[in-house]
Amino acid sequence: MTDKVQLSLAEARQLTIAALSANKTDPANAEIVADALVNAEADGQAGHGLSRIPSYSAQTRTGKVDGFAKPVAEIVTPVVQRIDANYGFAYPAIELALPFLKEASSKNGIALSAIRHSHHFGQAGVHCERLAKEGMIAFVFGNAPKAIAAFGGKNPMFGTNPIAFAAPNGNDDPLVIDLALSRVARGKVMAAQKAGKSIPEGWSLDKNGKPTTDADAALAGTMIPIGEAKGAALAMMIEVMAAGLCGTAFGFEASSLFTGEGDAPNLGQVILAINVDLVSGGAFAQRMATLVAAMDMEEGARLPGTSRLAAREKARLHGIEVPKPIYEEAVRLSKGG
Amino acid sequence: MTDKVQLSLAEARQLTIAALSANKTDPANAEIVADALVNAEADGQAGHGLSRIPSYSAQTRTGKVDGFAKPVAEIVTPVVQRIDANYGFAYPAIELALPFLKEASSKNGIALSAIRHSHHFGQAGVHCERLAKEGMIAFVFGNAPKAIAAFGGKNPMFGTNPIAFAAPNGNDDPLVIDLALSRVARGKVMAAQKAGKSIPEGWSLDKNGKPTTDADAALAGTMIPIGEAKGAALAMMIEVMAAGLCGTAFGFEASSLFTGEGDAPNLGQVILAINVDLVSGGAFAQRMATLVAAMDMEEGARLPGTSRLAAREKARLHGIEVPKPIYEEAVRLSKGG
Repeated sequence: MTDKVQLSLAEARQLTIAALSANKTDPANAEIVADALVNAEADGQAGHGLSRIPSYSAQTRTGKVDGFAKPVAEIVTPVVQRIDANYGFAYPAIELALPFLKEASSKNGIALSAIRHSHHFGQAGVHCERLAKEGMIAFVFGNAPKAIAAFGGKNPMFGTNPIAFAAPNGNDDPLVIDLALSRVARGKVMAAQKAGKSIPEGWSLDKNGKPTTDADAALAGTMIPIGEAKGAALAMMIEVMAAGLCGTAFGFEASSLFTGEGDAPNLGQVILAINVDLVSGGAFAQRMATLVAAMDMEEGARLPGTSRLAAREKARLHGIEVPKPIYEEAVRLSKGG
Repeated sequence: MTDKVQLSLAEARQLTIAALSANKTDPANAEIVADALVNAEADGQAGHGLSRIPSYSAQTRTGKVDGFAKPVAEIVTPVVQRIDANYGFAYPAIELALPFLKEASSKNGIALSAIRHSHHFGQAGVHCERLAKEGMIAFVFGNAPKAIAAFGGKNPMFGTNPIAFAAPNGNDDPLVIDLALSRVARGKVMAAQKAGKSIPEGWSLDKNGKPTTDADAALAGTMIPIGEAKGAALAMMIEVMAAGLCGTAFGFEASSLFTGEGDAPNLGQVILAINVDLVSGGAFAQRMATLVAAMDMEEGARLPGTSRLAAREKARLHGIEVPKPIYEEAVRLSKGG
């Protein structure tokens, strides 16, 4: 077991801001990024949490991510916005998208933002959730560096691209569905590699397309998608939505999100918002209540996201536990690396 | 092997129109339905093809489907249309949606149609494909009667709801992704039951949530979703989009699409269109060409939909082969049943 350091959410936020700000990142951008990382950590999504501080800082130091970039929005039509993230972090661009999406979909029923020259968008569901709290169904379609093979192929081509969705749920927390299209997150293979452990069968294929339990071989190969051909097709669909519509890099063109070397990853994100009251003519709320009641009646069933909300509540009350090496690295970085 | 009857596409269409028109269906509606069934048959999607003639006719005869219904459209905003299918077939409602989606998304970038009081929408990808041929990315979110359990539950709650998507692909056929969220189509279990055969492991669970190879037990139970919890969550997402946004029946409320008994299925479909040129600022076509070229370079990989297009070309040249019992039933129905 790695030793852990207990931090309040405020402490974790301050530490993240300090580490990023000391490494070629505008303090206002650092605050937005810190919120995203701390929220992911609190939600039990450590792979999108404080563990990213070292790799984000490595990228701002080399300029692979421009920590000082300010995203620029262009209104294409009353319901379509294009945002240039200017090779900065994704989160400030997403902050620019959300108010537009709320206002435009409130008026017109639907709205879309397409973000280009972007970066890692972290815990995808939380962006949708914020819109759902304001009365919208939301989707985020964002791609990631290559990890999944095309069906029939052996080389990684598509990201483990998540499908992320949220819907309003009366006065309760929104329904959030946020899942990667690989059977398991690639981060689990990276963690096994780091720990010198093997991985279970069924997670990964080696570079020859053969099943492997060796973490190194897996990282040189591909992640197995859910439903094989089906998951590979869905990962491709998200590449078309993200890289195609945004005019950015496909997974097979994007550089690593973990190292400071190379060109900018240049990823894309499309966010879609649908005002449920307007589109459904007021029918949505009652329908959603019926669905939730039916789930409550079904023995053993639970709504997606239950464990995420439990983790969030625990973090709110007791703070978070961060692995000591990550904490120490963040402290070191906050002193200028 | 069941004997087959060879029909040209024109013959299949005429037979379908005759069978439906003789069974309480408006001839104009019968033409639209016939196009959908014959196109599905030609595309190798027999489960959405002429095999539906007997069940559709059974439903029009009892009034479970109103064969004379005319869908009515309401413009909610410049980019949102609501359609009441009036408990008729889904296809005439979809015909009413497509021109609106094309025009509204050409002007505004995106548009959405929400169809309520609807029915079986057949081969989902083909509706998307028609929009993609006109320069739009399209999604169809439609639900179906219950067949998949909620994660952790044992009883069927959600349909094997497809994710259907299409995108323009230069002068070539659009990229079409159309997949059910069950590992295999429920129709395969029904076919095994009819043939008195067992089914492979991994397709279905019985009513106690245990794996089964017995087709009767499988049909009394549930279909296993792709990626287990993930596929169940995606099936739920589609229920929220279809039944929630349209204000219609969830899969667990909808009646069978195969028998004449009971209330109308009252399903919902949401169709979303995105004008790729407008939204991407002209970048989409080049990006899509890059993706297709990369797929071509990858040994063994092929674009989704290749076998569908091959089946379509074969049907265009040589017609289709329809199982003799279905042909004879259609002929019988065309004489008034």
